[in-house]
Amino acid sequence: MNNKAKILLFGTGAVGSYYGSILARGGASVSAVCRSDYDTVKKIGIEIKSINGDFHFTPEKVYRSADEAENPYDYIIVALKALPEIDTVSIIKSAVSENTAIVILQNGINVEESIEAAFPENEIISALAFICVTRIAHGIIDHQDHGRLALGTYPAGISPKVEALINIFRNGGVTADGVEDVIAARWRKLMWNAPFNPLSVIGGGLDTGIMLGSPLFTDLIRSVMQEVVALSIADGHPLDYEIIDKTISDTSKMQPYKTSMLLDYENRRPMEVEVILGNALKSGKKYGIDTPRLKTLYQILYMMNEENLK
Amino acid sequence: MNNKAKILLFGTGAVGSYYGSILARGGASVSAVCRSDYDTVKKIGIEIKSINGDFHFTPEKVYRSADEAENPYDYIIVALKALPEIDTVSIIKSAVSENTAIVILQNGINVEESIEAAFPENEIISALAFICVTRIAHGIIDHQDHGRLALGTYPAGISPKVEALINIFRNGGVTADGVEDVIAARWRKLMWNAPFNPLSVIGGGLDTGIMLGSPLFTDLIRSVMQEVVALSIADGHPLDYEIIDKTISDTSKMQPYKTSMLLDYENRRPMEVEVILGNALKSGKKYGIDTPRLKTLYQILYMMNEENLK
Repeated sequence: MNNKAKILLFGTGAVGSYYGSILARGGASVSAVCRSDYDTVKKIGIEIKSINGDFHFTPEKVYRSADEAENPYDYIIVALKALPEIDTVSIIKSAVSENTAIVILQNGINVEESIEAAFPENEIISALAFICVTRIAHGIIDHQDHGRLALGTYPAGISPKVEALINIFRNGGVTADGVEDVIAARWRKLMWNAPFNPLSVIGGGLDTGIMLGSPLFTDLIRSVMQEVVALSIADGHPLDYEIIDKTISDTSKMQPYKTSMLLDYENRRPMEVEVILGNALKSGKKYGIDTPRLKTLYQILYMMNEENLK
Repeated sequence: MNNKAKILLFGTGAVGSYYGSILARGGASVSAVCRSDYDTVKKIGIEIKSINGDFHFTPEKVYRSADEAENPYDYIIVALKALPEIDTVSIIKSAVSENTAIVILQNGINVEESIEAAFPENEIISALAFICVTRIAHGIIDHQDHGRLALGTYPAGISPKVEALINIFRNGGVTADGVEDVIAARWRKLMWNAPFNPLSVIGGGLDTGIMLGSPLFTDLIRSVMQEVVALSIADGHPLDYEIIDKTISDTSKMQPYKTSMLLDYENRRPMEVEVILGNALKSGKKYGIDTPRLKTLYQILYMMNEENLK
């Protein structure tokens, strides 16, 4: 691409705001579709308080919906929360043109399927963020740690569009790596999310330090991870059981960390129960793999989510 | 027995106070060993506020420990909370004479083993209470519902001493039934306790009505019950899988009920994690039965208990 890449960002929560700002800093023209924070972002943009230095992000244009957007875009970034009640396809539809690559920057597993079904001719890029970042108010983001991205063409490969996007991210100052098998990368991230996110909530509000401080609880985390590895193998994107130990060890070296699900729960926001646990269970059902721990966590968390939102 | 049965009660919590008072009302001479509530009980006895009519219980004697007790007793009632840190054998030891029957009125499974090992010559009576009762203050008990007892000689049979005790309970006004296989009766009660008690806490503070209001959560309760049934079969005291449906249905007809474990958790008191879940897991280990749900609940609840008592 000789010209500035033209990008439309959906979702100015913590993750969307952070990476949108990085893309702008990396040289792209980034506009944003906002909902609850439209007024703030339109007026003052987004303030990023970052361990790597604070900076400000002013989107090129701020829209209330995709209907106002000025097509075509090279990339659409889907950084909406991954919840069943959010109909991503309808939300992005009018901004998707022939050559638009749709970048899915969300948690969970099998989050690409409905997008692929709705836009079979468009390139889908699946992206994973490894970052500790929180939105502390409309238009104000607190970036506490990490920031690496892993991304690839869905379902496999690293297309020129992915490479171009990686370059923009790198120009903007984050580590971004292309992955040939992005589905395996999603399973790997799920191996972390599936135990730590739900158990931080179910255990009564635990950070990673407390969880890994207990050998008995760590054994549970390990057992949940084993179920995820079994699913990844059945799905043809096998993780190695050995990475369980490495993941536990790496996490125990991190600063004690409150998961995003726990923050959602504490703030009475919907938790991403379905994309993290529900979709894993669907995968287990498809392949005939029994995952009793994932199912137990799902059944408990589903109830907690419902009660919490009452 | 021609004379008044002489009974020493250990533990004047909700269950001990209620059934101690029933035994006194039924014609026995009931003394009590108290700890934290010694002063109150010594001074004013125990007030029972009951759906069946309020009444007052004045123990014959109130002691600070078994060392003060006036042996021999026909029965010792162990109504202490079943916690690993409570050394029941030491607590009751000096009150156990040759002909003393030791009545274990506690929750859980395999709660008789340590008592049997310490007092191999004494008759052990295992008793189960089906009751909704709470201690609302020292010396004040709130009996909200039910009250039936099931009891038998441990490990099996209905001895004359059991029959005599049943008669006193009945004279005192409660339904008491002898059971030939009290271990099976314990498994049956555990089938209720193992899902409802832990999940009421783990789910974030749920009563039985909320739990059974969700089909997904009820499915989890059912799965936990199936694991308990499998253990009872391996243990040679088989429950029938069909009673699961009946138990769910009976419970859903009850007034929504806060479990004792949830009350303990909310009041930052230790929960009976070991006798309800820990001992079930030990049983599973002994017989090579995999119970992933019981184990998951145990691992979570153990952590919650520790954090709650900090």
